[in-house]
Amino acid sequence: MAIQKPSIPKGTRDFSPKEMEGRNFIFDIIRNVFKKYGFLPIETPAMENLSTLMGKYGEEGDKLLFKILNSGNYLAKLNTSGISEMPLGSVTQQIAKRGLRYDLTVPFARFVVQHRNEINFPFKRYQIQPVWRADNPQKGRYREFFQCDADMIGSNSLINEFELIKVIDEVFEDFSLPVIIKINNRKVLAGISEIIGESEKIVDITVAIDKLDKIGIKRVLEELSAKGISDQSIKMLQPVFEMKGNNDEKLKFLEDYLSGSEIGMEGVSELRKVFSLISIDPIASELELDITLARGLNYYTGAIIEVKAKDVSIGSLCGGGRYDDLTGIFGLPDVSGVGISFGADRIYDVLLQTDKFPDDEKQHTQVLFVNFGDREVNYILPLLGKLRKEGINSELYPDSVKMKKQMGYADNSNIPYVAIIGEHEIQISEITLKNMKSGDQQTVSFEEMLALLKG
Amino acid sequence: MAIQKPSIPKGTRDFSPKEMEGRNFIFDIIRNVFKKYGFLPIETPAMENLSTLMGKYGEEGDKLLFKILNSGNYLAKLNTSGISEMPLGSVTQQIAKRGLRYDLTVPFARFVVQHRNEINFPFKRYQIQPVWRADNPQKGRYREFFQCDADMIGSNSLINEFELIKVIDEVFEDFSLPVIIKINNRKVLAGISEIIGESEKIVDITVAIDKLDKIGIKRVLEELSAKGISDQSIKMLQPVFEMKGNNDEKLKFLEDYLSGSEIGMEGVSELRKVFSLISIDPIASELELDITLARGLNYYTGAIIEVKAKDVSIGSLCGGGRYDDLTGIFGLPDVSGVGISFGADRIYDVLLQTDKFPDDEKQHTQVLFVNFGDREVNYILPLLGKLRKEGINSELYPDSVKMKKQMGYADNSNIPYVAIIGEHEIQISEITLKNMKSGDQQTVSFEEMLALLKG
Repeated sequence: MAIQKPSIPKGTRDFSPKEMEGRNFIFDIIRNVFKKYGFLPIETPAMENLSTLMGKYGEEGDKLLFKILNSGNYLAKLNTSGISEMPLGSVTQQIAKRGLRYDLTVPFARFVVQHRNEINFPFKRYQIQPVWRADNPQKGRYREFFQCDADMIGSNSLINEFELIKVIDEVFEDFSLPVIIKINNRKVLAGISEIIGESEKIVDITVAIDKLDKIGIKRVLEELSAKGISDQSIKMLQPVFEMKGNNDEKLKFLEDYLSGSEIGMEGVSELRKVFSLISIDPIASELELDITLARGLNYYTGAIIEVKAKDVSIGSLCGGGRYDDLTGIFGLPDVSGVGISFGADRIYDVLLQTDKFPDDEKQHTQVLFVNFGDREVNYILPLLGKLRKEGINSELYPDSVKMKKQMGYADNSNIPYVAIIGEHEIQISEITLKNMKSGDQQTVSFEEMLALLKG
Repeated sequence: MAIQKPSIPKGTRDFSPKEMEGRNFIFDIIRNVFKKYGFLPIETPAMENLSTLMGKYGEEGDKLLFKILNSGNYLAKLNTSGISEMPLGSVTQQIAKRGLRYDLTVPFARFVVQHRNEINFPFKRYQIQPVWRADNPQKGRYREFFQCDADMIGSNSLINEFELIKVIDEVFEDFSLPVIIKINNRKVLAGISEIIGESEKIVDITVAIDKLDKIGIKRVLEELSAKGISDQSIKMLQPVFEMKGNNDEKLKFLEDYLSGSEIGMEGVSELRKVFSLISIDPIASELELDITLARGLNYYTGAIIEVKAKDVSIGSLCGGGRYDDLTGIFGLPDVSGVGISFGADRIYDVLLQTDKFPDDEKQHTQVLFVNFGDREVNYILPLLGKLRKEGINSELYPDSVKMKKQMGYADNSNIPYVAIIGEHEIQISEITLKNMKSGDQQTVSFEEMLALLKG
């Protein structure tokens, strides 16, 4: 066979041991907080039926799904002579019935409906798995990336929103990464649209509001006008754009502004309730009511949540919200849920950039035994076995090669101690232990070495 | 949209919280032992280029690869009018350039070559990830399943084989699952073929020998004859079939039988070395020299290892061996490696069948606070926060519904304690704590509850 230059698909990544250490640090913290709040783990298959996935992420989303070619002779049932006249979509439908998971929310909704008789509601689940999107790869955007989701399903209580904000706060506190948690409510956005007399244009309005920070008020107004919003309505929007102050002041303004809209007032009252719960058991992060927050408008029906790093300019690190009818499409209506999703890859980038990864030596090998040959190896093996029984990660260099090479291996692997046992050490039943950082050497008994490595 | 009956692709599975607990128990033990022996984690993408995967698993394997449809207009470059005359393979080649990982070994070989300049050899890596095969699903065989691999690459030393046997032994000891570790050596099989004068028929011979247990000696002999092995050669094979005794007796027999074959004697000497290392630092499992073991003959060049449960009839739980030139195809020749792979799904089935999963209460919620309404919730929230700060997994029922429903939730979720705080408890600053197993109730202070949950 010809020699192949090895490579991986565009937008995917290998993770080295060093990178895995950082990633596991992130996953462990998130998993640990999820557990503390009573969330239970589930996993779903990488492949879902395309009928489960299609139509759930908009037209653009359908295109970004990775589709899997049917196995066997996938052309058998296709009228291949007419293929050039067929729309691409219907060819795809005939040759691919499965696709890779695009997010964890739709598979979770499918899971809930499929297993509804085994589930103990209200159901609090977490899920940490990769997802795949055929997006154009760019810095910080990959075709395979990991999501860490926690959702509570089957309860309308705003205590759930409160608990998810606590989860977010605790996770980023454990990362020592200061963040701003932004919160909004879809009902407030609906109320604003109603008040200005453009209820049916809620999406256009919120999309425009969402751009306020990026493109400025002038261009937002132009965009609204272009979308067919009347001048009168735009004028009525003006106070919303100019809203200022702390959360309490904003809530007071909205209460006044939205007093003529039932749904709007409901949104304000929900926000008030969440803020009030947090005042009882405060969080360390900054919490900001931000009515320009409009993510996931397709499915969120209540709270909308987004998290940004405080001192680093990067996209959102976590997002979520309440959805009142996610499982309806799979035949289980009226089940309300609320969830959040941490983006592990972006968190990784931020922690790396801000040098927040701890050096966890216990993760890798703590001592390497030098290999001088058969006789020494036979002496070392039982000692090595004892160390491992005591839970000490330890290695014996497999080949009896030059000392320098073995020391180089220890050095490159960041192994903190090297144990040297030659003929002399065997005679006196001692071990020469070298500290690789300081370069110091000492002669110790096995018990002394064990105590030192454990301490 | 029409309502869809939810389902998942054939051969794939959802994992419930209960199943995840068992699976994590397995992964944690394996990961922990890998670490203790100095293996470092890596991960590779689910998708690999088909050029990396094709031709590595035989013709049958190529068919079992899940192939991913190119994104965008995948038909654009295809001459669709001629499609019905094209062989299926060349259509596939034009519309799919990526596939799902089939095992962890080939991606690892690709990884080693691609990152050779960053790797510290000898490289000991572990990898725990799912793989996908378009096999016909049946009991115990899935289209998505998890492998847990450990490989050492860049060292010829037989200490590596010894260490991997130790890893296997320790993993199954941690599972409290008695196993037989079977070992063979490809060189012994080559020696046997040489001795009987049929060197070029080594594959036919070993495949036949491999079936000895299943189909009996008579049909094995028939099969050898049908493959064109001469009567003379078959007669010379007879003593091999009749070989009996313990490992030492088998080695003595082979030493005698293979004395005329250099490669055969090398195989025996390698086996002797591994047995001798184990005699210095013994294992708990039974170790058996089994010359009918012929798995992975396509790539194994030295040791061949397989693990079977002792008291349960099920396929192999772990397998592995030495391969002398796995990275050659990717342009890095002469790098020897040896590795093992645990099949997590089969191990799960055995542990379930033999009731070996521990009930690890610390994994799920330890206490549920009953929700009587706003006033009580406000009192409970700070206590809940304190418990979680102390690392106690705890929950507040989100809705103020009937007590019976809340107790039912705790019961179904196997939550061991329920904390009841009503008006009375708030007045006297105490908590009524109910033990869900015994049904006992006691009135305790918060500190007493904390101590009890920690203990």
